[in-house]
Amino acid sequence: MTDAAQPRPDETYSYLGPAGTFTEAALKQVHEAAGKHWRSVNNVGEALADVVDGRSTAAMIAIENSVDGGVSATQDALATVAGLRIIGEYLVPVNFVLVARPGTRLDEVRVVNAHPVAYAQSRGWLERELPDHAHLPATSNVQAAASLFENGLADAAVAPPGIVDHLDVEVLAESIGDNPNAMTRFVLVSRSRSIPARTGADKTSVIVELPDDEPGSLLAMLEQFSTRGVNMSLLQSRPIGDEMGRYRFVIDLDGHVEDERVYDSLLGLRRFSPKVIFLGSYARADRREVEYHSKYDDEIFIEARDWLRGILSGEPEED
Amino acid sequence: MTDAAQPRPDETYSYLGPAGTFTEAALKQVHEAAGKHWRSVNNVGEALADVVDGRSTAAMIAIENSVDGGVSATQDALATVAGLRIIGEYLVPVNFVLVARPGTRLDEVRVVNAHPVAYAQSRGWLERELPDHAHLPATSNVQAAASLFENGLADAAVAPPGIVDHLDVEVLAESIGDNPNAMTRFVLVSRSRSIPARTGADKTSVIVELPDDEPGSLLAMLEQFSTRGVNMSLLQSRPIGDEMGRYRFVIDLDGHVEDERVYDSLLGLRRFSPKVIFLGSYARADRREVEYHSKYDDEIFIEARDWLRGILSGEPEED
Amino acid sequence: MTDAAQPRPDETYSYLGPAGTFTEAALKQVHEAAGKHWRSVNNVGEALADVVDGRSTAAMIAIENSVDGGVSATQDALATVAGLRIIGEYLVPVNFVLVARPGTRLDEVRVVNAHPVAYAQSRGWLERELPDHAHLPATSNVQAAASLFENGLADAAVAPPGIVDHLDVEVLAESIGDNPNAMTRFVLVSRSRSIPARTGADKTSVIVELPDDEPGSLLAMLEQFSTRGVNMSLLQSRPIGDEMGRYRFVIDLDGHVEDERVYDSLLGLRRFSPKVIFLGSYARADRREVEYHSKYDDEIFIEARDWLRGILSGEPEED
Amino acid sequence: MTDAAQPRPDETYSYLGPAGTFTEAALKQVHEAAGKHWRSVNNVGEALADVVDGRSTAAMIAIENSVDGGVSATQDALATVAGLRIIGEYLVPVNFVLVARPGTRLDEVRVVNAHPVAYAQSRGWLERELPDHAHLPATSNVQAAASLFENGLADAAVAPPGIVDHLDVEVLAESIGDNPNAMTRFVLVSRSRSIPARTGADKTSVIVELPDDEPGSLLAMLEQFSTRGVNMSLLQSRPIGDEMGRYRFVIDLDGHVEDERVYDSLLGLRRFSPKVIFLGSYARADRREVEYHSKYDDEIFIEARDWLRGILSGEPEED
Repeated sequence: MTDAAQPRPDETYSYLGPAGTFTEAALKQVHEAAGKHWRSVNNVGEALADVVDGRSTAAMIAIENSVDGGVSATQDALATVAGLRIIGEYLVPVNFVLVARPGTRLDEVRVVNAHPVAYAQSRGWLERELPDHAHLPATSNVQAAASLFENGLADAAVAPPGIVDHLDVEVLAESIGDNPNAMTRFVLVSRSRSIPARTGADKTSVIVELPDDEPGSLLAMLEQFSTRGVNMSLLQSRPIGDEMGRYRFVIDLDGHVEDERVYDSLLGLRRFSPKVIFLGSYARADRREVEYHSKYDDEIFIEARDWLRGILSGEPEED
Repeated sequence: MTDAAQPRPDETYSYLGPAGTFTEAALKQVHEAAGKHWRSVNNVGEALADVVDGRSTAAMIAIENSVDGGVSATQDALATVAGLRIIGEYLVPVNFVLVARPGTRLDEVRVVNAHPVAYAQSRGWLERELPDHAHLPATSNVQAAASLFENGLADAAVAPPGIVDHLDVEVLAESIGDNPNAMTRFVLVSRSRSIPARTGADKTSVIVELPDDEPGSLLAMLEQFSTRGVNMSLLQSRPIGDEMGRYRFVIDLDGHVEDERVYDSLLGLRRFSPKVIFLGSYARADRREVEYHSKYDDEIFIEARDWLRGILSGEPEED
Repeated sequence: MTDAAQPRPDETYSYLGPAGTFTEAALKQVHEAAGKHWRSVNNVGEALADVVDGRSTAAMIAIENSVDGGVSATQDALATVAGLRIIGEYLVPVNFVLVARPGTRLDEVRVVNAHPVAYAQSRGWLERELPDHAHLPATSNVQAAASLFENGLADAAVAPPGIVDHLDVEVLAESIGDNPNAMTRFVLVSRSRSIPARTGADKTSVIVELPDDEPGSLLAMLEQFSTRGVNMSLLQSRPIGDEMGRYRFVIDLDGHVEDERVYDSLLGLRRFSPKVIFLGSYARADRREVEYHSKYDDEIFIEARDWLRGILSGEPEED
Repeated sequence: MTDAAQPRPDETYSYLGPAGTFTEAALKQVHEAAGKHWRSVNNVGEALADVVDGRSTAAMIAIENSVDGGVSATQDALATVAGLRIIGEYLVPVNFVLVARPGTRLDEVRVVNAHPVAYAQSRGWLERELPDHAHLPATSNVQAAASLFENGLADAAVAPPGIVDHLDVEVLAESIGDNPNAMTRFVLVSRSRSIPARTGADKTSVIVELPDDEPGSLLAMLEQFSTRGVNMSLLQSRPIGDEMGRYRFVIDLDGHVEDERVYDSLLGLRRFSPKVIFLGSYARADRREVEYHSKYDDEIFIEARDWLRGILSGEPEED
């Protein structure tokens, strides 16, 4: 698993490294990635560039945190980098430990190195237990811990539990995250045009622009789903960026594009919107079967098509 | 044009007779019917039975009057007699004359024979000009006039203007209808399974039952049209008849079933409703081109289908 | 109960007579009318004119039949005659007997006198038992029977069962109606401005015109009810009459105008529509309690108003 | 403008400092704040705590950036800290300069200190002009520049143009932001219960939770606005934080709570939602008059109320 000897792109997976990050924990859940080359990169942009440029077969990137919300960089990259597809979804519980160079005592800690998101999520603990600490920001959770050995600026670091496998640190406190149920949702992104098979427990992701900012155009978009019984599990607005007040929407739908009700919703969406990006259909991380009213069953759609085709072809209807 | 010698059914048209009725005036607008056998019947039920049993190729029946509203007998027959299709629509201005046996003077008129609908539509004139008259009801507009010669019960009759071509009556007053713009809308009904060609100025008629009487099911039905930009020109509720409060809906849509937006609406309708009767697509009587927003153009539907088919087949998208 | 000696208008009830009609059966259900003067009239127009002109305190009129649908004359009169209010609703089972002059045998019957609606509802029986009969239309069910003694034109008449209390007729057949569950719904109409008290089992009737015939205006109207959880038990379109294709809607809502959700719906309706006629709130004939989701309870509306008033008045909110 | 001598809270404004930040530029737009004590704080939480605890009369905080989107910390704080109100909105163009210690040349720059948002917005320029640079994150834009003099870690810093008034830095490059039209939107937050007067160019902000995650509940919420003609300029979902997939919505409406259509929408919203936080009505930063269809005028609402009150009080209606 090193960069040496030009690993084949179809055997390479990019992820936000280094070893020990939550992203690496997500990648460990991917069976196909076991034993392949894992390429550690510095940010979402690099990970997606690896995929686009063919250096990697896929990239694992964080897309949403249950406490912080959508990862803007990811959502914006998926909206603007062409040719990407989500092929899998993974959930990683997010918790943190406070680590230090061996021999450090908790009451000696004055400066804490932490990635801003990690800091925000363990701030309650830090303010309670270390009321006089100062915060030094880091570019990643692992880098926060690594910096302990690079310079003497910080006394301790907020890091993922897996850090102990990679660095010679001492754990001063465990489970310091403010929300014990915090989760990060990751997606595996590739350039492949083939859509993962329907499992019955699927998601479909799209990014949509509204036709204009008339009152009611958002409502008209959402009706494309509701009139076909398709539930949204995510609706996130992101600025298009050209001027204040113009947004695109990142949407996760329950179901697979091969489900008739999802397929028909996407047709309606495409007719409605000046720009729809299909990001993929893939198995849900939680494997929970999609629930929907039986009146939106595939058979209902097929029966209606047969009925109307029969009418157009001049067959006698049955009642 | 007599009943003798078994006219061929494919050359026979049934209509509410006798000669001189508004229905006959509607049938005169049908080019294909010129020179064929015209079969005069007594009511809508007979006319449709002729079609169903193969005695006639088509029947002309009144379906709506601009003053009185929908013709219940017609709407209910179309909902319950299987296998019928509307293949044309015709408008006839409805006006009335007051006629009498030759030699009668207006000031001698005491009893007026009139079909109840004709009576209702000329009641203003009758009450003003003949304040002391009594009304004797007739089964049809022509029979009202014919009865003048059958018994001495009435002194005058309310009749269509064309009556003078058929009976030796004297016109006591013209244009006695209360609404000078009154119109009756007729439809030509056949058993043919072939749908009249799309003209751009078409109507599509359906009869629909709602899935149940939950709040919102009517709204959900109408959304099938509105989300595809399809306008309704008629929405008429009729009792299903089994118990008070259960209705079916007679609906006229702007457009032809071969218009993509109408086709897709009908698919949605069929998925939604436990019972949809397709009554046909046919040219509008007024030949007025259907107006709709360009975002519901056929091309938009076709483009969306191509886009999604491309995605499912694994083609690279273009933006 | 005669017209003599100028009965006081506040003690007079108008109804479609004569004695023996279904309308009289409906009026018998009105406790307040017992012992008062009952004024028999010939049609809906006369009945409503009695109310408008102050000759009667109220009029009983048929508004809907479970088989034939809405009574157009009534619906149109309520839309165009100003100042009327519905104050009660009554249901009368509709069945028919075939009657004749004493001594007549069924196999002697050739001509049957019947009001067109009664004829339509017993047509199945008549065509089966008297296949060669001819139909002579009458202006009312009772007049059909009465005419047996006025002229020799008909041999038998279709009449309400109660006819035997009023005329010396012989019943040739009972229960000849095609639908044994047929019902007619009547309303009691007055000029009173006071609204019957809320009972929990109420209806509210309105007549509404749509703002224009843009696609979607009907949908927008129905949303006024659905967003407040108000169910419609009747939606009937009637031509406005000025030109083909323009309609007004007769609507019955579940609930009383003093129910918050109905009150708020009517506000929304009035803002939306160029013309709303409030026809009244009154107890349902079937006394069935109105069902609605608890999220549309009065308290929810009151709580929301209190909350927003508090905000506007500068009070600190509680959560 | 120093912290000395206990400034009166009603004369104190908190803002993300130090002097030179975009937040300070926003505060300079507030007339009432001129000449008062300005209290520099380190983050949104501190700024709001000052207001809640009564140390400041108001706090200026960033809420949205035209490129990065909503400021999560602000949106989450407004959702969870009780008793806050937005009383004003301000727009600040966002651009950046690259600064260094005097004497530094651009080609000597290896490490760039920058707040992550500033870094993201000038990344195009940095990657083009300084392809080999490393990024050191800072907690604020001003702190990025200040750190140049605190330690030797960075060679240059991305900073707001106003930094030259506060620090002895040399500008190596101007306008290095990738989007020349980038804007940040700020809001002034206080504990005052009094609502700023209606100007005709107002916004109303609310935070709403959906009743449950049934398909259609978001749609039902949006209908509260669309059926009253109220446009949304912002709809942002934020995780509630307790579990993946539960969101609250931050919403900006066009108009003032004293506009009838907004008032009525808020009533509908409150009835619909288990939790609504009213954040305030205030003048829009761009002073652009709110556009809405005349059918949602105040008068329409008032007229409807008068009409229905008249009906309930028993007055005769006029048409």
